[in-house]
Amino acid sequence: MIKLNSKFVLTKQINDAKIKTLYQTKVNAILKTIKTKKALGLNFTGWIDYPNKVTKTQLQKIVSATNKIKNKKIKYLVVIGIGGSYLGLKACLDMTNAYKNSNLSVIFIHNIHQNYLLEMLRKVKNDKYGIVVISKSGRTLEPALAFDMFYQNLVQKFGKKTADKLIIAVTSQHAGDLRETAIKNKWQTFFIPDNIGGRYSALTPVGLITMAFCGLDLNKLFSGAKDATKKLKNASLLQNDAYRYACYRHYFFKTKKMDIENIVVYDPYLQSITKTMQQLFAESEGKQGQGLYPASCLFTTDLHSLGQYLQQGKKCFFETSLFVKKTHADCQLKIKDPVIKYLNKFKLSKVNEIAFLSTIKAHTYDGKINNLIIEIDKQDAYHFGYLYTWLMYTAMMSAYLLKVNPFDQPGVEAYKKRMNDVLKK
Amino acid sequence: MIKLNSKFVLTKQINDAKIKTLYQTKVNAILKTIKTKKALGLNFTGWIDYPNKVTKTQLQKIVSATNKIKNKKIKYLVVIGIGGSYLGLKACLDMTNAYKNSNLSVIFIHNIHQNYLLEMLRKVKNDKYGIVVISKSGRTLEPALAFDMFYQNLVQKFGKKTADKLIIAVTSQHAGDLRETAIKNKWQTFFIPDNIGGRYSALTPVGLITMAFCGLDLNKLFSGAKDATKKLKNASLLQNDAYRYACYRHYFFKTKKMDIENIVVYDPYLQSITKTMQQLFAESEGKQGQGLYPASCLFTTDLHSLGQYLQQGKKCFFETSLFVKKTHADCQLKIKDPVIKYLNKFKLSKVNEIAFLSTIKAHTYDGKINNLIIEIDKQDAYHFGYLYTWLMYTAMMSAYLLKVNPFDQPGVEAYKKRMNDVLKK
Repeated sequence: MIKLNSKFVLTKQINDAKIKTLYQTKVNAILKTIKTKKALGLNFTGWIDYPNKVTKTQLQKIVSATNKIKNKKIKYLVVIGIGGSYLGLKACLDMTNAYKNSNLSVIFIHNIHQNYLLEMLRKVKNDKYGIVVISKSGRTLEPALAFDMFYQNLVQKFGKKTADKLIIAVTSQHAGDLRETAIKNKWQTFFIPDNIGGRYSALTPVGLITMAFCGLDLNKLFSGAKDATKKLKNASLLQNDAYRYACYRHYFFKTKKMDIENIVVYDPYLQSITKTMQQLFAESEGKQGQGLYPASCLFTTDLHSLGQYLQQGKKCFFETSLFVKKTHADCQLKIKDPVIKYLNKFKLSKVNEIAFLSTIKAHTYDGKINNLIIEIDKQDAYHFGYLYTWLMYTAMMSAYLLKVNPFDQPGVEAYKKRMNDVLKK
Repeated sequence: MIKLNSKFVLTKQINDAKIKTLYQTKVNAILKTIKTKKALGLNFTGWIDYPNKVTKTQLQKIVSATNKIKNKKIKYLVVIGIGGSYLGLKACLDMTNAYKNSNLSVIFIHNIHQNYLLEMLRKVKNDKYGIVVISKSGRTLEPALAFDMFYQNLVQKFGKKTADKLIIAVTSQHAGDLRETAIKNKWQTFFIPDNIGGRYSALTPVGLITMAFCGLDLNKLFSGAKDATKKLKNASLLQNDAYRYACYRHYFFKTKKMDIENIVVYDPYLQSITKTMQQLFAESEGKQGQGLYPASCLFTTDLHSLGQYLQQGKKCFFETSLFVKKTHADCQLKIKDPVIKYLNKFKLSKVNEIAFLSTIKAHTYDGKINNLIIEIDKQDAYHFGYLYTWLMYTAMMSAYLLKVNPFDQPGVEAYKKRMNDVLKK
């Protein structure tokens, strides 16, 4: 289960009951526009029904496709995609520690800077690897360029016939260059539903292929997604934590004039979730001169870099902390250093829980920072499916509260257009 | 050389000449308070003279100390430190790609979350490794706890006598628990000057030890630092790019009421520089309700997550992009995919340069974002020494312009105090 804890919001300003008073009518009106097909961007809400529509046969087909490549004894899996084509997927693998289930080293290629791309190629070039290339349009420059390099290297080493059997393409069903190339070369190919946009697509083949490579339990993933979908049908803001979170976000932005949501995690392996939240929120809300800047921090690490500012600097932000109750790893402390031997009464998880609560209290009571906590029971496939679904509902409602389309991203074209004009000249 | 290019600042609002008009008198007055010993925090300005004071003998001693451990055929170097004890150092190694000079795998431990710390320990526990532990006070919980675990593992495997020869401690010369423990166990120990604070200390033994482990040319590093120091003695805002950068930052914060500086890099290996800038700026400025939130982005990657917001969302930020002219790696493109074969007239670096310029133009002209560019000629030891020094001068001047002490961080104690109260109860 995922819960929004607002105990550390500065109560004089706002609390759950006040949020209900201020926002329930607005939220109901928005839900009505969705029901009556009058809301913006409804042709991109395929993600809402997807978990209930996906069949065991479809999932089995995905697992079989990945097994075919795994059987060829690959050392690396190179996953090529940018934005929604890798962020949610990476968040899932990091949170669930899915890498542990397989002997596969997964390498994400999301940047084409020469220092990085050539180093990644150097790293894998003497070994056998599989490639998952993900591009809905098939036209985005970054994955197209990166894929060409990694594919050519496979062809040179193993010949075209073998190389073609090491590729899975994930792309649009009906059009695009990647789709055509994939068909021509007989690559295993999976399709992204037309009615699901990039940042809402991690639970489609976009994410599922690589999750299957890592042996993640896809049934549990969808079990979590379905439970969240069911739970979030409840429109009441006291019951629907995802929508309530959206209302808090809107309140801090509009009423309290805050510019930043500082998204905090305490586990380095949860940082990719903050990146997913950045995309979901920034791309859904950030238009028509509106939207919070979703910044992200790793504590306690960044308490020793950004901490001073957060504690005593300009209060133009609120904080949202993700906290996992039951983590993968733990140990009883057996410290020998006499200076910190007093810690031996604790498990390591307890020390970190105390660090978390102390920081929340220092920020709230000493620093006058509004703090929301997203409480996550466990970090398995079920909870990722639940959390990601929950965050998509938050992103959608956040955008609708700002009266913008949650599902488009017209601003991303600006740099692409200028770049392509120069490159193609 | 490092230069501040303000060509993409929206000129109607501000430009270099106007900055000089608005700020030269203020900057001169601040420099006078430094000279006359009236400025805040001057007992922590040891970093200003350090590059000119450090001797060849001192550097040779550092190199010898690391060689003694390298000769024991270690596989990993575990560097334990938080905040200023690792950020500048990591930025240096990443920017210069110093790892390449050695066969050593460097692991930074800056977080004690159970999932992370136990995984890092598992990774190295069957091999021989050296440890550099860096803690000025020796009292910070995170490095103390992490060090105890890694040290105990060495002792268990190799016995105390061998383990003690694999440690280098970097700490305060005159007091502290780490200093005492180090002396007792006869670890090789180096000292952090009392008059240099954490975030200003990467060019002291804090950073130098690990840089020497990686074979970085320390003389070139200091040559860059010394050249920057010399150049930045010039108080004229048209000549002193570091101070001019501080003035632009202050102008956007105070006059334009912006809350965020969005720091951008295009090379994944430069991300740790943005983290260093976050610490330098946030800890130096973020007090008394003031300061910019220094956020960081990796482009073109994050153009597909935060890009929509930056292009069309709320304009509460300005951007500072770091651009390296001559990068480590490059290649002529030899693409086979007919769809993007038109790129073959370019080197990969040229494609990325075009992506950079197109983004700057899209943000400035289409998005009405003020853009500063920090131009860096090369990414070697000389240029890191120059850049880091340059950034320290910017941080100092930025804080003085806000009339706060650039060298303290009283707010960092808030979470520590609450945490220690609970842990020691």
